[in-house]
Amino acid sequence: MGLFSKDIKTMDDLFVHQIQDIYYAEQQLVKALPKMADKATSPQLKAGFLDHLNETKTHVTRLEQVFKMLGLEQKAVDCPAIDGIIKEANQTAGEIEDKSVLDAALINAAQAAEHYEITRYGSLIAWANQLGRKDCAAVLAKTLDEEKAADHKLTKLAEGSINLRAAS
Amino acid sequence: MGLFSKDIKTMDDLFVHQIQDIYYAEQQLVKALPKMADKATSPQLKAGFLDHLNETKTHVTRLEQVFKMLGLEQKAVDCPAIDGIIKEANQTAGEIEDKSVLDAALINAAQAAEHYEITRYGSLIAWANQLGRKDCAAVLAKTLDEEKAADHKLTKLAEGSINLRAAS
Repeated sequence: MGLFSKDIKTMDDLFVHQIQDIYYAEQQLVKALPKMADKATSPQLKAGFLDHLNETKTHVTRLEQVFKMLGLEQKAVDCPAIDGIIKEANQTAGEIEDKSVLDAALINAAQAAEHYEITRYGSLIAWANQLGRKDCAAVLAKTLDEEKAADHKLTKLAEGSINLRAAS
Repeated sequence: MGLFSKDIKTMDDLFVHQIQDIYYAEQQLVKALPKMADKATSPQLKAGFLDHLNETKTHVTRLEQVFKMLGLEQKAVDCPAIDGIIKEANQTAGEIEDKSVLDAALINAAQAAEHYEITRYGSLIAWANQLGRKDCAAVLAKTLDEEKAADHKLTKLAEGSINLRAAS
């Protein structure tokens, strides 16, 4: 998008812009999740990150399906929000030596990413419905359900074992 | 925190680090919300941002109370996540001319900030309880409730009028 132009003129444009934004975010998470799995010590957390990596790859594919449904070229636009969330995760992780404290911080970082996606997909689904694109809304809703389930799993894992171990 | 040191050694340290991080985030939102209120066209959205500005100032004060309860100096550390969320909000808003589309984008941006805070306060409360600081958890829980209520109000406002107007 041009620096001096106002490229978003309609809700359709805003919808497409946010699809391009979350397309970038999902791609960054495909790169970040294997690194988070490498850093994790808890076998359940490691497995959780790798499971979610597979889901995230499906989310990328679903967005490509939405581009196709809209008759648009696949395109990603920079998403400073997810870049910031990933940068903060790396910075914090880099300052932690204790393995179980690191696991607690990794869960916290992953949940920030999940929540970012939950809010974005929530808006995208509402917009798609209002723009008369229930077909796109249905595809995006599958991903939203998986993001919410992933967030819930992380909370259970944190509260069930990792925080307790880290605080002991 | 030092670039070459591992400054977070315990869960207590991680807890304090995240308190410092959200302290910075809340301060940035105190600066961002009046600008968002200025840009908003819908009178309800404008009022909603200004109400939440007042709440956000209280959140800053509550964090200062937590610093005091922990016997620590008030200190903010950079939070690239909130910086990214605010940067993205400004970039997207800058590309929109239509007032009602801008309102829809502003709500979306504000919800990304709310969700970031909801996930951070959620972890902080869980950690405070596990570290035996129920007193801090109780203070942080008041803020979490307000963040969730603010997010809910934004969703209602978006679904009730703003998205409809923007899509028409």
